[in-house]
Amino acid sequence: MKPDNTAPQALTIATLRARYRARTLSPAQLVDMIAARTAGDDPHHVWIRALTRDEMMRYVDALEGNDPETLPLYGVPFAIKDNIDLAGVPTTAGCPAYAYTPQKSAAVVERLIAAGAIPVGKTNLDQFATGLSGQRSPHGACRNALDPRYASGGSSSGSAVAVALGLAAFSLGTDTAGSGRVPAAFHGLVGLKPTKGVLSTLGVVPACKSLDCVSIFAHTAHDAQQVFDVARGIADGDPYARAWTPAQSGVAGDRADAPALRGVRFGVPRATQLEFFGDTSYAQAFDVAQARLREAGAELVEIDFEPFLDTARLLYEGPFVAERLAAIRPFFEQNADALHPVIRTIIGGAAKWSAADLFAAQHRLAELRMRAEPVWQHIDAVLMPTSATTATVDELEADPIRVNARFGYYTNFVNLLDLSALAVPAGFCTTGAHSGLPFGVTFVGRAHQDAALLQLAYAWLGEAVETQTQTRAVERPASTSASIRVAVVGAHLQGEPLNGQLTERGARLIEATTTASTYRLYALPAVASGGVAKPGLVRVPADGAPIAVEVWEMPLAAYGSFVAQVPAPLGIGTLTLADGSAVQGFLCETSALDGAADITSFGGWRAYRASRAAR
Amino acid sequence: MKPDNTAPQALTIATLRARYRARTLSPAQLVDMIAARTAGDDPHHVWIRALTRDEMMRYVDALEGNDPETLPLYGVPFAIKDNIDLAGVPTTAGCPAYAYTPQKSAAVVERLIAAGAIPVGKTNLDQFATGLSGQRSPHGACRNALDPRYASGGSSSGSAVAVALGLAAFSLGTDTAGSGRVPAAFHGLVGLKPTKGVLSTLGVVPACKSLDCVSIFAHTAHDAQQVFDVARGIADGDPYARAWTPAQSGVAGDRADAPALRGVRFGVPRATQLEFFGDTSYAQAFDVAQARLREAGAELVEIDFEPFLDTARLLYEGPFVAERLAAIRPFFEQNADALHPVIRTIIGGAAKWSAADLFAAQHRLAELRMRAEPVWQHIDAVLMPTSATTATVDELEADPIRVNARFGYYTNFVNLLDLSALAVPAGFCTTGAHSGLPFGVTFVGRAHQDAALLQLAYAWLGEAVETQTQTRAVERPASTSASIRVAVVGAHLQGEPLNGQLTERGARLIEATTTASTYRLYALPAVASGGVAKPGLVRVPADGAPIAVEVWEMPLAAYGSFVAQVPAPLGIGTLTLADGSAVQGFLCETSALDGAADITSFGGWRAYRASRAAR
Repeated sequence: MKPDNTAPQALTIATLRARYRARTLSPAQLVDMIAARTAGDDPHHVWIRALTRDEMMRYVDALEGNDPETLPLYGVPFAIKDNIDLAGVPTTAGCPAYAYTPQKSAAVVERLIAAGAIPVGKTNLDQFATGLSGQRSPHGACRNALDPRYASGGSSSGSAVAVALGLAAFSLGTDTAGSGRVPAAFHGLVGLKPTKGVLSTLGVVPACKSLDCVSIFAHTAHDAQQVFDVARGIADGDPYARAWTPAQSGVAGDRADAPALRGVRFGVPRATQLEFFGDTSYAQAFDVAQARLREAGAELVEIDFEPFLDTARLLYEGPFVAERLAAIRPFFEQNADALHPVIRTIIGGAAKWSAADLFAAQHRLAELRMRAEPVWQHIDAVLMPTSATTATVDELEADPIRVNARFGYYTNFVNLLDLSALAVPAGFCTTGAHSGLPFGVTFVGRAHQDAALLQLAYAWLGEAVETQTQTRAVERPASTSASIRVAVVGAHLQGEPLNGQLTERGARLIEATTTASTYRLYALPAVASGGVAKPGLVRVPADGAPIAVEVWEMPLAAYGSFVAQVPAPLGIGTLTLADGSAVQGFLCETSALDGAADITSFGGWRAYRASRAAR
Repeated sequence: MKPDNTAPQALTIATLRARYRARTLSPAQLVDMIAARTAGDDPHHVWIRALTRDEMMRYVDALEGNDPETLPLYGVPFAIKDNIDLAGVPTTAGCPAYAYTPQKSAAVVERLIAAGAIPVGKTNLDQFATGLSGQRSPHGACRNALDPRYASGGSSSGSAVAVALGLAAFSLGTDTAGSGRVPAAFHGLVGLKPTKGVLSTLGVVPACKSLDCVSIFAHTAHDAQQVFDVARGIADGDPYARAWTPAQSGVAGDRADAPALRGVRFGVPRATQLEFFGDTSYAQAFDVAQARLREAGAELVEIDFEPFLDTARLLYEGPFVAERLAAIRPFFEQNADALHPVIRTIIGGAAKWSAADLFAAQHRLAELRMRAEPVWQHIDAVLMPTSATTATVDELEADPIRVNARFGYYTNFVNLLDLSALAVPAGFCTTGAHSGLPFGVTFVGRAHQDAALLQLAYAWLGEAVETQTQTRAVERPASTSASIRVAVVGAHLQGEPLNGQLTERGARLIEATTTASTYRLYALPAVASGGVAKPGLVRVPADGAPIAVEVWEMPLAAYGSFVAQVPAPLGIGTLTLADGSAVQGFLCETSALDGAADITSFGGWRAYRASRAAR
């Protein structure tokens, strides 16, 4: 039997972490394996530029002295689509004539490396991220990892294939019109297309600057979530950056501890609006997926998909394509011959549209957004096939634009409507021409519902959810106007189970202090505190004491949703701190203290808990 | 001495209300006066179509049976820019060939009429709202009400002149690039250019659809505020509608009871970035305004105005003008000859821009927005002259495009940067060529800071602030995703002094009900409740009673700012209602009940207050 120090074939963050923790694998050993795997031929055309062992080792060396437990992506190898900058390695966007060598990595790449992740190479793509096929590249058609006769999907082709082949645990793609979702579906991977702007596009070659998203491929929803948590953050100088303000979906998002599909309402396009272009394998697989969701207790309701489809048509059948021309205009005008012929046709076609045409299309988009809006009042997420069908490399070569367009039937509208989307595996086709190939569905939510979609995926994929103990505050946008300080006293303290309710709203810790000496602290009976151990703080007329609190600051716009989930007998009132200042903070209804232990003498919740643990 | 039943020369809402209340004037009498005033010549070219007495009387008749006290704009006459629909009267946009007669009034007009306001006519404008001069109209150059040799400013020319001449108490304009501010400055009026989208543009002829705002002219900030409060609301079918989420400015907005300028930080463009085009009258007047603010305790800090100016240049020196072409393209292509020659030149010039040009300009705008953003971290508002200079009608006729452009130096960037702006009078020029003419400054804030700007204006203009007793809920957007229900028990009840904190956040009353029988209600001592009489609700283990509450629903995004202003000893917790359901609601710290009267037996705050009033 081989020793247990080989890299696992399919790399996941959880497995790697367990192996590092058990010391049955080191990052250096992992890099050796990956270097060995990438050194040979590249029959799938994954790489535009794989890093050498030495190049990867520089990142491993930088981990020296870091505790694997504190770096959330310690020693986790990842691949980077070659339209995203990695310092010192050329960025080509799939067009050698366009290549440049950045001094600085893209903002998201920097964040991942700072969290311990190790870049392994730059991946093949549809040139200038224009396509959903993976075949519009001078580096060769990117081939499906599971069946090389088939297309990989694109434009983030090599990034999906690298993860599927075990050359990386996760990868970065970009997704303007579906490029982060279609390749996920074709490989049975999770593909997160986050809310626009929450992963910085600074250091990414623009396709459609106002729509581009950095996307994440991973084997599990949990891996995608961890990468997403690290990669988020406002980068200085990114005009399209947005603070992430996780939305309360009212259903999925509220179940961090026990994700479930029971009672979740999925909107599904009407039967007449579903389109598989004759692909019975896919049509059948989507039926199966729907049946599985119903069995799990989800409710499937028909929605009018027309505004979504009308939006999708806008993207490629009108002046919006001119954003791709605007992105590379001087290069295009001087180097049209250097482009892949399909890309040249698409981008060159944009020149015919006028500014007035574009305004008319943008006004039409505003109307379609309004028409699509009511859908969200009745459902938690839209459920769709990720792609309408698949195709072989030969089929795509024979009819490159029309076959490619079929892959985008369910994806093109998402960024124009400012939605979040998560492509998830949904088993395999079991009938028809594509029997045996993976099938995928996409959960679509409104902007900022990324976390809610991931929750749905946990339940759908049957993933156990680790407790989220990560306490690093999400970087706060310098531009946030209004914020509010709130003092927390119990389960919301740093490291405590509900602290995530603060950090996921972009809150940051301002100070650890105490209240004025006019409070008493009680340990609430389990029945009153809903399972999670919680204290109750009350102001008293006399005989109070200072109680330890943490003061957190969060964007005012996110505060309402925070307060909204505070359960009885707790509430939000005004707390007086030791220095006499007043902040908002947690208080408890006096009527709930019947049967509660007075723990004032401990001086705070943590001290009380430590004393219990020590017993 | 004449009897006191003439209409006052300058009509204000406050005076009219007082006269109606004292029964020294009736709406019918007022309409008679206005009809008499508008019946003769129109040397200022105010009107495209003044309503006849009979037409106005139809609106007066509709007030029959309404209590003047409950309709916030009962019998208040207003003028309407002729690019805004009034049912049954042609809308021309200043271009007779374009005219159509709408069946339905614009959404804002409908709201004003429903609140008791009386339309008096459709006003002259720069054709298609393209201009800042008031002279680009086939209906004659609109002349300044204070000195007819001078320009009225535009494009909402007649709307400003109508108010200045006492033909209306307030008026509606539109403001895409300054059209609601420049005419205000030229007439010593208040001109509110609200946050984009909060006054519906449904039923307004588009200029730049994505930028257009309906604006308000009035004599006082308080009048403007009252019109704004009534006019707001999401109209069905308006793709550019936005819910108003009043921003907590941290300074001005927090002082509803005692507006003051002390400590307010105004950002002023650097001396080298100020531009008066040689107008020493205006330069001097701006110095005086700054000195006055300093005397009042405000702090004036220099800001880098360059990103704002760069944005202003984008609007007319690039492809953004194509939005005006997109708005009327089929008409323009078939009727170019019907246009005013200056307008034809401007809009016709848009055809040269491509869609890729426009995307490049939109990307540049995103960068400029980012560059302008840091300014707001250090200031409460930007202070600028409203216009850089003024001009006579003859001067404008001699050089219509260049002189017009000078008026927009400080206005063009506002909507592109998604800001709110309030033009306010700042006395008169006292030196130079324009001595004796009014001068105006503009307070500029971020989106949703309209209320904060109005607060600054109260202080600046020395206006006493009436208690806001208006109770009509702002229409809630059907599209608001997340909302929260909160039960109020005292000063936030409908008609009570703090109810405005709910309505200004777009909250609507869901039901009047009672709590479960587990609460007691106390009248808080004045010292604990900060001046406003307030009750305190507490849950009790036994011996409770049902207490009257109102359940209001508000957008979750606005809820944080609501909770943030709840003062001790009150707080927000969970209330159990009579039907057993739980909602968020006001609770009181038990420790504050020392000395509080138990008023549980009254069953609610209103009943208790009524009993006090009856004594």
